Amino acid sequence: MSNKIEFIYLSEPDTIKLGITDAPAWVDVCEEVFGLLAKGDYLMGGPNHNSHGMGIIFPKESPFPNMPVAGPDRRFFAMPAYLGGRFDVCGNKWYGSNAANTAKGLPRSILTVLINDKDTGAPLCHMSANILSATRTGAIPAVATRHLARKDSEVCAVIGCGPINKSCFRHIVTQAPNLKKIITYDIFLDKAQAFADWAKSEFGLEASATTELPEALKEADLVTVAASRLKPLHIESSWIKKGALVMLTGPAKGDDDLWLKSKIVYDNIKLHEAYVEEAYASGDVPGYYAGVIGGPIYTLIDEGKLPKLEDSTDIGNVILGNKPGRTSDDETIIFVACGMAVFDVACGFELYQRALKQGVGQKLLLWDEPYIK
Amino acid sequence: MSNKIEFIYLSEPDTIKLGITDAPAWVDVCEEVFGLLAKGDYLMGGPNHNSHGMGIIFPKESPFPNMPVAGPDRRFFAMPAYLGGRFDVCGNKWYGSNAANTAKGLPRSILTVLINDKDTGAPLCHMSANILSATRTGAIPAVATRHLARKDSEVCAVIGCGPINKSCFRHIVTQAPNLKKIITYDIFLDKAQAFADWAKSEFGLEASATTELPEALKEADLVTVAASRLKPLHIESSWIKKGALVMLTGPAKGDDDLWLKSKIVYDNIKLHEAYVEEAYASGDVPGYYAGVIGGPIYTLIDEGKLPKLEDSTDIGNVILGNKPGRTSDDETIIFVACGMAVFDVACGFELYQRALKQGVGQKLLLWDEPYIK
Repeated sequence: MSNKIEFIYLSEPDTIKLGITDAPAWVDVCEEVFGLLAKGDYLMGGPNHNSHGMGIIFPKESPFPNMPVAGPDRRFFAMPAYLGGRFDVCGNKWYGSNAANTAKGLPRSILTVLINDKDTGAPLCHMSANILSATRTGAIPAVATRHLARKDSEVCAVIGCGPINKSCFRHIVTQAPNLKKIITYDIFLDKAQAFADWAKSEFGLEASATTELPEALKEADLVTVAASRLKPLHIESSWIKKGALVMLTGPAKGDDDLWLKSKIVYDNIKLHEAYVEEAYASGDVPGYYAGVIGGPIYTLIDEGKLPKLEDSTDIGNVILGNKPGRTSDDETIIFVACGMAVFDVACGFELYQRALKQGVGQKLLLWDEPYIK
Repeated sequence: MSNKIEFIYLSEPDTIKLGITDAPAWVDVCEEVFGLLAKGDYLMGGPNHNSHGMGIIFPKESPFPNMPVAGPDRRFFAMPAYLGGRFDVCGNKWYGSNAANTAKGLPRSILTVLINDKDTGAPLCHMSANILSATRTGAIPAVATRHLARKDSEVCAVIGCGPINKSCFRHIVTQAPNLKKIITYDIFLDKAQAFADWAKSEFGLEASATTELPEALKEADLVTVAASRLKPLHIESSWIKKGALVMLTGPAKGDDDLWLKSKIVYDNIKLHEAYVEEAYASGDVPGYYAGVIGGPIYTLIDEGKLPKLEDSTDIGNVILGNKPGRTSDDETIIFVACGMAVFDVACGFELYQRALKQGVGQKLLLWDEPYIK
C-alpha cells in the first residue's frame, strides 16, 4: 500500500474558475450549513465546540521595535472546524488582517483555507480564501433574506460601503426578486456614491447615496450593516421602517427599543452562548461585550429584558421548519451573524469537490512515503 | 506597482533537501528561540499571548454517525505565533492527530506550517511539517542538555521509544560528547529493543533495552521522557541518579520528592502561567492539571510546597546568563518542555530562508492582482 499523500492548491484565479463569484450557489451552501448548525452536526474550536477561533493579539506597545503593535483591524486568526453532513471534513482558516494593507493596494485581510481529512488529518486542499471568505460572509445575510424578509421587499439600505457589504449585497440581491432601489450610507460620501453607482450599473437598480443614517434607513425593507469596526454605528429604532429585516454582519449600537421591539434571529445560538461564556471568563464583561456584534443584546439578556439565548430563535431552525421565522408583515426582524469557521470549511470543501471534478488547481506532494512513522 | 503575491511550497522531501534532518543546526535555532522567549520578544495565541493553541476537541460520543469521536491522541490543533529577533514573522502550525493512523502506515499526526508576513499577512512559505515538528521537539531537550547536563554525562535513558524520543535522542546525542551508553525503556520490549539497536548502529553506543523503569534510570546521567500519554508513567525520586538531568517532553508522574528535591527548569514560565490560568478558568483544576506536563508541579506550587512560577528558573534566562543553571554536579535537574508554536515558526522561517537561497520548493501564485481590495 502506498502512503503517498498529495493535495490540491487553488490560487485565487482557480477559485474564480471554480465559480466562487457565482453568488446564488453559495447562498444554497450557506443555507445547508445553517441546517447542520441547528442540528448540531459540527464542531468548532475549544472545549465548548463553539469558539470563533484563536488570534495573535498585538499589544498596544512593545519594547521590541519590530514587534507588531495593535492597529486598526490588525490581527492574525486561526479558525478551525469540523463540519458534518455531506461535507464531513475538518479545516482551518488562517489569516492576517491590517487596515494599513489598503494603502499598499492589498486587501485588508489575506486569507487561506486548508481542508483536511477528518480521520488522518491529511491535507486535501489548500486555497487562497479572500473571495471565499467574502462570499460566505455575504451569502449569510442572503440566507436571512430568503427566509426572513418580506417577500415584497423593494428597497435595500447598505450601511457601510466596503468590500464586505459589496459581497453581502451581491448575494442579497439574488434573494430579493422585487428589489427596485438601493440606498447606500457611509461616513464618506464618495464611498457611498461609488457603491450606488456600481449597484446601478451592475443590477439596473435605482440608487442613491447619503451620509445621513436616518435618510438611508427610512424606506428600507432590507438593511445590511457591515460598517467598519473603527467607527461605531448608532441606530435609533425610530429610524427603521416597520417590517424591515436588519441584517448585522458588523457591529451596531442602538437605543434599547431597537433590540426590545424587534424579533432577534441568531445565526447560531451556541456560538453566542460561547461568546457570553468567554466574556465572563475574561473578567471584563462590558469590555468583552463591546468588541462583539451581539454585545448590546447580551447586555439586555443579562438585565432580563430580552429572553435568554436558549429560548431564542436561530435561523437554522427556521430553515428546518422547527421554529417560526417572520410571523407578520409588520414585524421588524434583526438577524445577527458572526463569522464562523464552519462556513469557510463548507465553501472550501465545495471548491475542493469542484476542483477534483474539473481538474482545476495544482497537485502538491506532501510525501511519497512519510519519513517518520 | 504590482500586487502579485506568490509563496513557496515545500514538500517533506524539500525540507530534507534543506537540512531539516541535520540535528545540530536545529539545536542552535531552538537555543536562539529560548533567548527570545526569555526576553519576551514573541507572541503566541490568546489575550495572555501564551496560549498553546486552539483545538477541535472531539466529543466522547455523538448522535451523528460520521462525526469523529474522542480517541487516542485524536484531535486537530491550530498553533499561531509571532516570533521576533531575526525571525520577525507570524505563522501557524495546523495538524490533525489520530493514533489510528499508525495502522494505516501513516504518522500519528500530519502537520503543516504556514509562515506569513507580519505586516500584510501574506503567505510566505507553506510546508510539510512532520519532520520539522519532530525536529523542534527533539532539539529542545538537546538545548537543555547543552546548558544543564553534567559535562561528563555518559549514560542516557530513553523513556518511551516512539518517534518523538527518537528525535529527542538524535539531538541530545549532539550535545553529549562523552555519551557511551543508552538504556531504552518501553512497556513493549520489542519497541525498546528496536530503539536500542538503532542507537547502537547509528551512533556506535553501548545499548540495552528494558521494561523495568528503575533499571533504565539507575545509571542514567541524562533521562529523556516522551512516553505515550495513553499510559501514565510513574517515576520514584529514589530511582533517579544523583546529578541527573531529567528532560520531560511528555508527561510523567512521581512521588512529591521527585519534584521537591530537584531543581525545576522551565521552557517558558509565561506559558506555564497561562496553563495555570486556563486551568482555573476551566472550573476543573485537577482535571486540567491531569492533562498537561506541568500538572504535578502546578499542584505542588498551589500547595505552597514549590516556589511560585514567577520565582522559578527558565532556560532562556540560563542561556542569557541572567539566572544560574546547574550549580553543582550533585544537583538533579528536571527540565519541563511543552510544545510551543514559536519553535515551529522559527524552524519554518529558517527553512523558508534556505529555500529562497537554494531555490528549493515550488512557487505558488496567490493572485496576480487581488480580486477584492
